Amino acid sequence: MAEVKIAKRSEDYSRWYTDVIAAAELADYAPVKGCMVIRPNGYAIWEQMQRALDAMFKETGHQNAYFPMFIPESFLQKEAEHVEGFAPEVAVVTHAGGQKLEEPLIIRPTSETIIWHSYRNWIQSYRDLPLLINQWANVVRWEMRTRLFLRTTEFLWQEGHTAHATFEEAEEETVRMLGVYRRFAEEFMALPVIEGRKTEREKFAGAHHTYSIEAMMGDGKALQAGTSHHLAQNFAKAFDVMFQNQQGTREYVYATSWGLSTRMIGALIMAHGDDNGIVIPPRLATIQVVVVPIARKPEEREKVMEAVGRFTAPFKAAGIGYKIDDREQHSPGWKFNEWERRGIPLRIEVGPKDLEKNQVMLVRRDNREKIPVTQDGLTPAVIAMLDTIQKALFDRALEFREKHSYRVDDYAKFNEMLDAEGGGFLWSHWCESDACEERVKNDTKATIRCIPMSRESETGQCVVCGQPSPGRVIFARAY
Amino acid sequence: MAEVKIAKRSEDYSRWYTDVIAAAELADYAPVKGCMVIRPNGYAIWEQMQRALDAMFKETGHQNAYFPMFIPESFLQKEAEHVEGFAPEVAVVTHAGGQKLEEPLIIRPTSETIIWHSYRNWIQSYRDLPLLINQWANVVRWEMRTRLFLRTTEFLWQEGHTAHATFEEAEEETVRMLGVYRRFAEEFMALPVIEGRKTEREKFAGAHHTYSIEAMMGDGKALQAGTSHHLAQNFAKAFDVMFQNQQGTREYVYATSWGLSTRMIGALIMAHGDDNGIVIPPRLATIQVVVVPIARKPEEREKVMEAVGRFTAPFKAAGIGYKIDDREQHSPGWKFNEWERRGIPLRIEVGPKDLEKNQVMLVRRDNREKIPVTQDGLTPAVIAMLDTIQKALFDRALEFREKHSYRVDDYAKFNEMLDAEGGGFLWSHWCESDACEERVKNDTKATIRCIPMSRESETGQCVVCGQPSPGRVIFARAY
Repeated sequence: MAEVKIAKRSEDYSRWYTDVIAAAELADYAPVKGCMVIRPNGYAIWEQMQRALDAMFKETGHQNAYFPMFIPESFLQKEAEHVEGFAPEVAVVTHAGGQKLEEPLIIRPTSETIIWHSYRNWIQSYRDLPLLINQWANVVRWEMRTRLFLRTTEFLWQEGHTAHATFEEAEEETVRMLGVYRRFAEEFMALPVIEGRKTEREKFAGAHHTYSIEAMMGDGKALQAGTSHHLAQNFAKAFDVMFQNQQGTREYVYATSWGLSTRMIGALIMAHGDDNGIVIPPRLATIQVVVVPIARKPEEREKVMEAVGRFTAPFKAAGIGYKIDDREQHSPGWKFNEWERRGIPLRIEVGPKDLEKNQVMLVRRDNREKIPVTQDGLTPAVIAMLDTIQKALFDRALEFREKHSYRVDDYAKFNEMLDAEGGGFLWSHWCESDACEERVKNDTKATIRCIPMSRESETGQCVVCGQPSPGRVIFARAY
Repeated sequence: MAEVKIAKRSEDYSRWYTDVIAAAELADYAPVKGCMVIRPNGYAIWEQMQRALDAMFKETGHQNAYFPMFIPESFLQKEAEHVEGFAPEVAVVTHAGGQKLEEPLIIRPTSETIIWHSYRNWIQSYRDLPLLINQWANVVRWEMRTRLFLRTTEFLWQEGHTAHATFEEAEEETVRMLGVYRRFAEEFMALPVIEGRKTEREKFAGAHHTYSIEAMMGDGKALQAGTSHHLAQNFAKAFDVMFQNQQGTREYVYATSWGLSTRMIGALIMAHGDDNGIVIPPRLATIQVVVVPIARKPEEREKVMEAVGRFTAPFKAAGIGYKIDDREQHSPGWKFNEWERRGIPLRIEVGPKDLEKNQVMLVRRDNREKIPVTQDGLTPAVIAMLDTIQKALFDRALEFREKHSYRVDDYAKFNEMLDAEGGGFLWSHWCESDACEERVKNDTKATIRCIPMSRESETGQCVVCGQPSPGRVIFARAY
């Protein structure tokens, strides 16, 4: 493996991001424009994300299924807003099996249309509801400007698609799954997020309304980390999906959809990474602990390896993912660098001097702190330390976000702050007009990230036009 | 849910297969030709298959990754046999993002080309080898005649792609992964299989040679259940992937690839299903046990449900997947039918009379046997019964295969037997000529399924032409 130099995060954030991905061997650009190869180190993170989310989906009563990736072109056109939103960025299959197709096929940019086509056959009565289905799949959106993980032509995601008897039940589901995303972000990714509602302008094409979780990255920009849509009866009407309710009358079904994608790997890099590489939160790390034996002479090596075998023996049963790096061709220092680049949360160093003291050295990836620990009772110490690191990452990200969140009531100041380094989240009043939202975007490139669900009850004047505002929203530049 | 009638297996095997899929709600045909919707009951089986296989891949040192599904058309053409084999059945993207593409993109029918393009950047030295990677993905092959699970335009699979320093190491890997497939088929699917080598005519397009596991279905036909290919240096040469060996000279890398797909769900249906529906082997069932309480009066119901709560309490910790069907709108008989259609391996019936005797009734799905068991110690009894069912399914399938396997040395007899109901596996001598292989196919529609690895050492005369033969091969009609 070639040595990879990582640009300083404070000097060139964009370059730093790309360098970290290369240095940790997370992904490569593919020969097809905007597509990526997710390498084993990157895919291992996605597998951990899938495991955590999939368990939460199943706990909340959802089942997985799989729908075709090909969508007849005519399907997309059945929902007016949906086609307008997605038609410009689809990839189209026109030929197959050596022949021109009668109807071109679109590769799913999202699966509402093909799924609601099926739901028509699956739903007849209120007894068939709610229908709670999730799909793990690849999707394609032909993007002009792409960036590894954050925005790629093809990406991996999960998409939930549920059907309900009433608007209220669909609303409950929409909010419930937003909550699942928040818990996932906070508890697994160590990423604090703000739950909120999107504006009309920013909602999903075809939704009644959209919720998202928004996170702050290490450069102060926002990243939309997961979205949950209340689709009302829009797709049921487009695909004629009706059910007989308990009163015996037929009505259209209510729908939700919600998705989270491999862009979360990008979020993870940008939230926790540093000048030495990525930092993987322990709960998403396959290798949580790397053990580096330090020994120059063969007889030292033998003793050290014997100790390593002894103190790592209980790790597996304790659920600790670990790796012993006993490669002889590399020096300990070389190995430290490599595992730091790869973001392994905790390193255990052990050499002859440590053996004399019956100890090992724990080295935290998040702050590089070194802590000597006795070999007896090492397993619980490692588990505790992994918890500490998980929490420390969250706390640091939260502190960073709080430090870069501002209440701004003056438009000149508003512009100035968004132009300044760091950007951040601007909590400002907004009159709810499309015009002011658009003006902000034109003036500053910032958008309304969300109308926070937990905002204080506080009326005021729109930061742009001074008209009455029902409360503060979050403005930020975003990925 | 509408009642579904299942055709008798003995009367119309093909219709029976389709009916079983509908009755168990495993899959639907999609609105796009030859594509399928894998419904939750079907997808749950695939998830269990993935879990089992993925664990075995990781135990043998493989890591997962993800490569783009788009392949530049020119890539496919780099390996002569490969393009010849796959070009006729690819789907082609010609437009994307509202524009005509400069180079059309093929949707992967298999990923050798796009993966070996990446390997060129990943492999420099013998230290980078072996490279052991697997991918879970969807692939597309535009088939003329499709059948749910067995042959669909889009299907899900895993494809392993490994790189090695020598021909011998690649051969070891090819055979090792064939062994993993055999273990998976036998231990999880309860499906006896024969490991063997494909003829030149039947090998993978681009392989040096191909191995497969072949299973016999309930109508005596063969099904190729997994394939493992030794690619020699074919793709390394096509994509110019060289490494520096330990002696310091550069040479081309050796490759393998191996795959197993959702067609295994079809195999599972056809191997174990009966006139009542699918039969899921316990080790692949998410719901292994369904508990049906039987009670007419509310006070009975209360007592029965209390007992059910008590005796199922230890199930989860014991790793038993179970469901309590306490729906009030359906009779016990209706429920029995539904769970039989859905292939749940074991049913527990419990009513007031059982309570009096401190027992429950176990009902096996595989042979419908009813076994009264005391409620004390039910958990180990259920575990033992699931093992018994798993083994019984395997034994039954093996017995069926043995019963329909024949040593045939006369070509008239050979033709007659293949035409007869049941078909089966014909172990016959073959002179290794392409001409005789082709003649058999033209005369009987049967192909050489494999040259079994475990065949007896026995020379003879080709069943077709009478020329010398080095040993028997298996002829059969196949799915």
